[in-house]
Amino acid sequence: MWVLQRAGDGTQGSSSLIGFPDWNAILPQIAIDAMSGDSGPRTVLWALSDLLRSHPTVQFHLLGDESVLRRELTRKRLHKSSQIQVHHASQVVGMDETPSQALRNKRDSSMHRAIGLLRDGVVDAVVSAGNTGALMALGKVLLRTIPGIDRPAIAAFLPTLQGRVLVLDLGANVDCHPEHLLQFAVMGSILFRQVAGVERPRVGLLNIGSEEIKGNEVVKAAGNLLRQSHLHFVGNVEGSQVYQGICDVLVCDGFVGNVFLKTSEGLAAMIRQELRASYTGSLYGRFAYVVNRPILQKLRRRLDSRQYNGATLLGLNGIIIKSHGNADRFAFARAVEAAIAEASHRLTLEIAKVVQDDLAQAIPSTA
Amino acid sequence: MWVLQRAGDGTQGSSSLIGFPDWNAILPQIAIDAMSGDSGPRTVLWALSDLLRSHPTVQFHLLGDESVLRRELTRKRLHKSSQIQVHHASQVVGMDETPSQALRNKRDSSMHRAIGLLRDGVVDAVVSAGNTGALMALGKVLLRTIPGIDRPAIAAFLPTLQGRVLVLDLGANVDCHPEHLLQFAVMGSILFRQVAGVERPRVGLLNIGSEEIKGNEVVKAAGNLLRQSHLHFVGNVEGSQVYQGICDVLVCDGFVGNVFLKTSEGLAAMIRQELRASYTGSLYGRFAYVVNRPILQKLRRRLDSRQYNGATLLGLNGIIIKSHGNADRFAFARAVEAAIAEASHRLTLEIAKVVQDDLAQAIPSTA
Repeated sequence: MWVLQRAGDGTQGSSSLIGFPDWNAILPQIAIDAMSGDSGPRTVLWALSDLLRSHPTVQFHLLGDESVLRRELTRKRLHKSSQIQVHHASQVVGMDETPSQALRNKRDSSMHRAIGLLRDGVVDAVVSAGNTGALMALGKVLLRTIPGIDRPAIAAFLPTLQGRVLVLDLGANVDCHPEHLLQFAVMGSILFRQVAGVERPRVGLLNIGSEEIKGNEVVKAAGNLLRQSHLHFVGNVEGSQVYQGICDVLVCDGFVGNVFLKTSEGLAAMIRQELRASYTGSLYGRFAYVVNRPILQKLRRRLDSRQYNGATLLGLNGIIIKSHGNADRFAFARAVEAAIAEASHRLTLEIAKVVQDDLAQAIPSTA
Repeated sequence: MWVLQRAGDGTQGSSSLIGFPDWNAILPQIAIDAMSGDSGPRTVLWALSDLLRSHPTVQFHLLGDESVLRRELTRKRLHKSSQIQVHHASQVVGMDETPSQALRNKRDSSMHRAIGLLRDGVVDAVVSAGNTGALMALGKVLLRTIPGIDRPAIAAFLPTLQGRVLVLDLGANVDCHPEHLLQFAVMGSILFRQVAGVERPRVGLLNIGSEEIKGNEVVKAAGNLLRQSHLHFVGNVEGSQVYQGICDVLVCDGFVGNVFLKTSEGLAAMIRQELRASYTGSLYGRFAYVVNRPILQKLRRRLDSRQYNGATLLGLNGIIIKSHGNADRFAFARAVEAAIAEASHRLTLEIAKVVQDDLAQAIPSTA
């Protein structure tokens, strides 16, 4: 799965340290499902054209309709790039397809083929803006989970007043058991450590009060497991404290995590709409808007979900990054960069190592 | 429990329709726990002084340290008001006390005594800014629940782009069964109908997707019950849709509801802090703030949680309104008005009637 050496041709930079895996020698190969998402190949290729310059050592494998892709590449004058390979895939997984439909009927879809390249070791990570349920199902079937991990979770970064927080699970698993929450915490800590350089990320458990007795049965039991673990567990975290930056990793059941995420998105949208209505409602409003625009833009950038685009399907035996379906070129590029970073840090291997060592020692056997 | 007639003395307005309960003849008597909450009697009495004028037919019974209360009343020149009675209570339930501690040790607390007046039919509703857990526990023990309701819920209004939504349960019950969610929906619909005048409030079920198959086991089963009921059930509602005003009543498990509420509060606080930082960061920022202030104030009023202060403990055999502990005079007054409105509409009787008729017919027996 890992490319430990790549013969360079000069244009790709130094790359010939043989036998010693290190940052410079690992030249990630990223498969991109170019057909999924609201705007398909166009957005993907715009994002790529931005990334080729800043990531000259990365190889991109595009999956999708070959003629469409080659045409788009030519339009953007990328058809001669040595960093891009095209693999033809004749199908696309629809946004409304169930995971089982995708598994049964779409074996030649851009999504299926991309994960196949990952399974076969041709690439180090997959990026897709498609149907999350299908992506997770295909990931589980084709890659399996890391040994010791029962349920992969969807994990994403969100902004806080202190920086950012990694939240999981955001919706892959409803009805989690306490052991699953512990596994989320272990995986999330490793990812956060790699990405943010924090040695011992603070782990919080999403709950309805700070006392240990608070919460439903699963959460209370998970709290006990977390307290007994080696993790830097800071205790229960209420929904109102998350955005204050009280923890680096926030674990919760997938149902609750999805409500947390969607609620945040919905409230932010409402505030935006209310603000917009205030500004456009009158002449004074429009004047105030012009004066206020730099402030609003700064706020928008600060809270911009696009810079955090790219959720990790954490726990699969391979790196899959899920982009929002409506991502623009900037947002999709961020998702691809997340894939590159996780591949470079060998995230999956790290998790597998930790899970084998630590879980066996300190944590009860998983159900 | 209901005061069907009160002999008027002229200053209280006409009130002598004997035997026929109707709006004019029902002169609510409200018990107020004057010692709970962060600022105790001072805020309570400020709120009262605002309400006496606008509600000349309402009687207020204050529970608390008699000497403290009489002193505060004198300071505010309310000591001669015929609308205020003082009942001495020697204890106060602490904010950190567990419900069982409150039940055992604080029988002469302002909270306990207030609910006692409700139980004994002296008053029609109770308002308290104190410890929610203790309030609910005391309510359950002293009042019991409305026949047919298993678990009382905490219900509160939140602003939406269309107006407002009533959300329950906000944290009284973790690990709900599907039948409990149905009961929340029934009670919530009645309260919304009374307060907003909407004949058939739209009921939504907080979930992680629109399809019927989505959600954890409890939510899926609750969806089935709601679809079979007489309620105007609009289906699953995601966290992002709530603030768009897609439903009038939103039902969920208490754990999830608490996360929803706290997340909203936390994100709103973060946006406020980020905005404030943007404005104070520079000279331009301060200029922009001055220009922008009317817009911000309009937004703040629109989203001001103070106007929605006053959550109902819905399902008890009597009306209890919980105010935020840190409510100011304006907010506390809104909570008292909620109590007056629910008492005037005879909320508890309405729920009892509906539950007896409808639950027997259309809804499976509760576990």
